[in-house]
Amino acid sequence: MSAPAPGSGRARSTRRQFLLGGAVAGVGAAAAIGVDLALSAAGTAAPAVPSTPLNGDEIVPFHGIHQAGIDTDAQAHGTFVAIDLNDDVDAAALRRLMRILSDDAERLTQGRGALADSEPELAISPARLTVTFGFGPRFVQRARGAAAAPAWLRPLPAFAIDRLQDEFSGGDLLLQLAADDPLTVAHATRMLLKDARGFGRVRWTQQGFRRAYGTVAPGTTMRNLFGQVDGTSNPKPGTSEFDTVVWSSEGWLAGGTGMVVRRIHMNLDKWDRLDRPGREQSVGRTLATGAPLTGTAEHDEPDFDAKTAIGFPVIPEFSHVRRARPEDAAQRIFRRAYNYDERPADAEVSDSGLVFVSFQADVDGQFVPIQRRLDDLDLLNEWTTPIGSAVFAIPPGCAPGGYIGETLLG
Amino acid sequence: MSAPAPGSGRARSTRRQFLLGGAVAGVGAAAAIGVDLALSAAGTAAPAVPSTPLNGDEIVPFHGIHQAGIDTDAQAHGTFVAIDLNDDVDAAALRRLMRILSDDAERLTQGRGALADSEPELAISPARLTVTFGFGPRFVQRARGAAAAPAWLRPLPAFAIDRLQDEFSGGDLLLQLAADDPLTVAHATRMLLKDARGFGRVRWTQQGFRRAYGTVAPGTTMRNLFGQVDGTSNPKPGTSEFDTVVWSSEGWLAGGTGMVVRRIHMNLDKWDRLDRPGREQSVGRTLATGAPLTGTAEHDEPDFDAKTAIGFPVIPEFSHVRRARPEDAAQRIFRRAYNYDERPADAEVSDSGLVFVSFQADVDGQFVPIQRRLDDLDLLNEWTTPIGSAVFAIPPGCAPGGYIGETLLG
Ligand code: HEM
Ligand code: HEM
Repeated sequence: MSAPAPGSGRARSTRRQFLLGGAVAGVGAAAAIGVDLALSAAGTAAPAVPSTPLNGDEIVPFHGIHQAGIDTDAQAHGTFVAIDLNDDVDAAALRRLMRILSDDAERLTQGRGALADSEPELAISPARLTVTFGFGPRFVQRARGAAAAPAWLRPLPAFAIDRLQDEFSGGDLLLQLAADDPLTVAHATRMLLKDARGFGRVRWTQQGFRRAYGTVAPGTTMRNLFGQVDGTSNPKPGTSEFDTVVWSSEGWLAGGTGMVVRRIHMNLDKWDRLDRPGREQSVGRTLATGAPLTGTAEHDEPDFDAKTAIGFPVIPEFSHVRRARPEDAAQRIFRRAYNYDERPADAEVSDSGLVFVSFQADVDGQFVPIQRRLDDLDLLNEWTTPIGSAVFAIPPGCAPGGYIGETLLG
Repeated sequence: MSAPAPGSGRARSTRRQFLLGGAVAGVGAAAAIGVDLALSAAGTAAPAVPSTPLNGDEIVPFHGIHQAGIDTDAQAHGTFVAIDLNDDVDAAALRRLMRILSDDAERLTQGRGALADSEPELAISPARLTVTFGFGPRFVQRARGAAAAPAWLRPLPAFAIDRLQDEFSGGDLLLQLAADDPLTVAHATRMLLKDARGFGRVRWTQQGFRRAYGTVAPGTTMRNLFGQVDGTSNPKPGTSEFDTVVWSSEGWLAGGTGMVVRRIHMNLDKWDRLDRPGREQSVGRTLATGAPLTGTAEHDEPDFDAKTAIGFPVIPEFSHVRRARPEDAAQRIFRRAYNYDERPADAEVSDSGLVFVSFQADVDGQFVPIQRRLDDLDLLNEWTTPIGSAVFAIPPGCAPGGYIGETLLG
């Protein structure tokens, strides 16, 4: 199977086509695979190697009511870049910038090179690449004045657990690039940053990962570097709960959402000194399956009223899930985090944590109350430290011919 | 398909089993897939989703004449860690250290947790994990005296192009961990470093990547961040050429090899200012397919005598492949590099390059002459700068019950 030439169009592949060998292999090849497998099952012949389906060819549509990269099944690699705008960038310049970046994103996510792509061969395997844009307070102010910003678009209130570093906090324009291939992410990030460099400079970059595509069965909840199943109790894309939790209906943000990015250092050395029961109690779920301590399967509902023989709650009051679970359904959030694991400095054995990412229509109304409760009490705080924090307004998607941000800038 | 419990054994999967749906799916499932595909090819039915083969379950044997991770098809993610031994570590301590690390490596590569693994759930998807150990000069000296070291086991001679940084150079013990899953690599690295921490401290860590498993067809040569096809002219594992180039037959190193790790910064901004013909001339191969400028397909033999209409060599004298191609077949090396792309500092749009890795039985006789020629003249030097350099002796593999390094330490 040969890769299409750079710049050639690419039909949207669906999961079904993918499993069947992809649009590229086509019906003839699929039939041939069937024959090979049938022969092999009968033990009568050594099978020819069937054309391998390539997850590199999978494409996520760029255009739509919402931006991609939010309700998209999280890809294996995510890079987050916050840009600070130059002082002279006004609304007209922002319009130019967002037109250019939207064009780059559209092309790259569809497996074509960016306009004047300097390495077009690195663009032909999109591997479900998505590019998602977010606006910080100064972006909105420059675009249309501070009054246009939702009330929650500002740094989060200070929390007692925070040890924030400037180099991982704030920012005017956020790029979230995610794909199942690290080379695809590296190339796309570079293409966008080249086009953005006349308008501002990089404030921070964060790189994260989840299990590689195909390592575990599709739909498996990710694990973080504590070994925990992380992401179980999360609104499911495609449900009305998800739509309510995530999508805004306010003015230029309608169809968009609010994004919180928190860099949370995880002290693995300290965590390792805790025994398994202690770890499971700190979260309220088992390490083996992620089931609540009152259940047996990952998606069992936790029973917060269940008591042990001696009368203590089975899921402790101080456990992370107990504290994080909103009393009020209006306070839910959608989490889409990535692990990070960087070159450790000095005597440390690792420098690891979570690029915690959540999407919610109203950051103040949904995220902040949860974070406040966790700030007051959450045993997990013993091993985790927020070291970066940023809030962005994620504008809606756009139709062909449009650009991301047009509802604010247009 | 459910994941086996942590600590359970795992049969070796072969590529063929994998392509057919894996040992786990078995013959029945393969037959079912065949039927589905046949139906779908005839357009008569929507196919059921077949059990997905999981590359996370693929295992590379740990035991053998040679260490794994050299002739293993390069995995998507590679982490390289160099450790400096504490002053009090003597031969007996090294023996203990290598027994422990070999045990960790055996378990982790076979999909079982390390002994007292603190996050055993992160160990159950080996994803072709390999762990390869290398010894620096001080390791060999401590183990058996300096006389036991091969003559080439020392820092490379200084080259004019070098801008070496101490933080990426040298080291007493090298760990190369590679797998198709980044979480697997992160976990395994941590497990080994925890066990090594009583014996020394991390000198440097380098993390690299290639295309994700399954992004491109198996056997596709990797591309580096210049967009070049990189690795075309390389001895093929399983051939007698490979065996001659790579495996040593000297004393305790018999079945082992020599390893060079060079961190080479690639100036992508400067590279982008060069036009495509200029780029192709600097290497002597096309960007689109990696074919030599005198050919049409990647694996065509370059014709270094071919001249243009006006009498110039088609593959320029200063091109990288012309300069790197040994006149003497005894000077070949086996390259197994990884891309790196880190959080850029300040105004840079990227901090990228190659973790250049080569294996050869005799570093002085094979690698050094090539590097000398490239140092004298290689147009690619305009865009590349070596910033780290280290040389290690890679001991042979071991049998069950043995440990890596036993031929030196035993
Ligand atoms: C490094 C830091 C963190 C770690 C390791 C962590 C880990 C976990 C784990 C293992 C679970 C249980 C499985 C699941 O439902 O996903 C969970 C649940 C949850 N976490 Fe976190 N978390 C972290 C930070 C946060 C933060 C900063 C927030 C929000 C402020 C948060 C909000 C939640 C919520 C809402 C749930 C679901 C609770 C429920 O309804 O059952 N987490 N987290
Ligand atoms: C960032 C630095 C480097 C880049 C980007 C680079 C890139 C390339 C490319 C694109 C090729 C042609 C395709 C292939 O056969 O793989 C190549 C070939 C080769 N390179 Fe490099 N290379 C780099 C550094 C080195 C170094 C440090 C050495 C050894 C000292 C080396 C030795 C070779 C050899 C032996 C060949 C094959 C030549 C032949 O026989 O055709 N390269 N390299």
